[in-house]
Amino acid sequence: METLSTNRAFGGVQGVYRHASRATGTDMTFSVYVPPHPEGARLPVVWYLSGLTCTHANVTDKGEYRRACAELGLILVAPDTSPRGDSVADDPAGAYDFGLGAGFYVDATEAPFADHYRMWSYVTQDLPALVATEFPADMARQSIMGHSMGGHGALTIGLRHPETYRAASAFAPIAAPSQVPWGEKALGGYLGADRAAWRAHDAVALIEDGARVDALLVDVGDADPFLTEQLRPELLGDACGAAGIDLTLTLRPGYDHSYYFIATFMADHLRWHAARLGA
Amino acid sequence: METLSTNRAFGGVQGVYRHASRATGTDMTFSVYVPPHPEGARLPVVWYLSGLTCTHANVTDKGEYRRACAELGLILVAPDTSPRGDSVADDPAGAYDFGLGAGFYVDATEAPFADHYRMWSYVTQDLPALVATEFPADMARQSIMGHSMGGHGALTIGLRHPETYRAASAFAPIAAPSQVPWGEKALGGYLGADRAAWRAHDAVALIEDGARVDALLVDVGDADPFLTEQLRPELLGDACGAAGIDLTLTLRPGYDHSYYFIATFMADHLRWHAARLGA
Repeated sequence: METLSTNRAFGGVQGVYRHASRATGTDMTFSVYVPPHPEGARLPVVWYLSGLTCTHANVTDKGEYRRACAELGLILVAPDTSPRGDSVADDPAGAYDFGLGAGFYVDATEAPFADHYRMWSYVTQDLPALVATEFPADMARQSIMGHSMGGHGALTIGLRHPETYRAASAFAPIAAPSQVPWGEKALGGYLGADRAAWRAHDAVALIEDGARVDALLVDVGDADPFLTEQLRPELLGDACGAAGIDLTLTLRPGYDHSYYFIATFMADHLRWHAARLGA
Repeated sequence: METLSTNRAFGGVQGVYRHASRATGTDMTFSVYVPPHPEGARLPVVWYLSGLTCTHANVTDKGEYRRACAELGLILVAPDTSPRGDSVADDPAGAYDFGLGAGFYVDATEAPFADHYRMWSYVTQDLPALVATEFPADMARQSIMGHSMGGHGALTIGLRHPETYRAASAFAPIAAPSQVPWGEKALGGYLGADRAAWRAHDAVALIEDGARVDALLVDVGDADPFLTEQLRPELLGDACGAAGIDLTLTLRPGYDHSYYFIATFMADHLRWHAARLGA
């Protein structure tokens, strides 16, 4: 692991790092905030997955998570959203919603994307193994959150691995990717035309198929331009209602899809995670 | 005034605007955060002046001021750091520390900079007149803060106009520009070779020449790479000590010159301003 930068922030250290990922076969850049902590302590880890077009840098610059992480004693890890590099295939038309910056947190099975687009394995196995060895992390206490495409990632990972992630929450998630244009393009492109394979990467379908967690926390702005066509949180509400999952879904008046929205509710989410992480 | 963007944030509105400035003779872009407030209320205004290479966007993205401004009921205005445009002269060598992005909050007297580099008048007269009419601002309650070159601007403006600005504070200010390379280049380039003219734009010289305020608040990181060559806060400490100004100067262990440092102490500064603004 190579350290690209470290900066003192809120009594802890905000770092940016690069490593060679076995999962993606590429170099991957990510950020980690380690709050102030007693020597020798091991701290719970919150994973933050970012949305379309983002890298680790968007939330690191604009997420306003460090004050709350410092108060609560939480490590926050922000991975990139796709493999990158000259060898990595991109959307044929260079679109923003597929390929680079748009890995959708799946392990692709379709050529040419299967070579490097293995963000599910990267986020759930490869990067956690590195974080466990390089940072003062208590890997028995992890949780996951994300925004938009990353909210989709957080919900699907949290639903499939509740034994690993004690909490999952999302800002403006793509709640039912199989049923919306962004998701149909991405899941079709990475996983192929058979929609049965998509269900393991669709929060609503996972719940319909029996995945269970105690609770989920989701915030969405009612001025989010993607609300009705791409996000569709009401489908998550219906699925959680039918499954008996305690979903706290709040539509926030006047808020949009930006980091201004995320930053506003970031501390609330982190407190919710901390309560479930014993932090 | 043209609205470039508005986003709901922490219950208020973060906006970015553009107007034709009479002071600079150019279009100028700036940001304003208006916190949640009762209908008809007029709120105190904190001016934030940015450092070399910055625009309004750096603090708007990374300053983490909105939560505290919402809690305290403060408007925060972030101007640009220089005039911009095809007609605006720049450093002959394109250096980062003079010309575009480096207006140094003076009204230039030297050709060709005197045409547009009138940031003192812009920040103290032109933009306040616009803010007074376009936002719910109580212009009888203003204060000023800034970072690096903007810390220099905040201190000099606060020292020269204590009747207008009830408080002045700075992160890592260029405390004595007449005595350091950044300041010698800028003040020489904008104001000419006669160092007597520089003293009105040097916080330490202003205090030596009789300028008085009750108190100043300054934070500087002890890992700031510019600390000993460009910032020299100890000279401000000496001047305030001799003048009987209550300077709270804190050297923050491990902090550097970045927005990670600023964001960490932003809420402390805003609370200090709020107490002096009756907010």
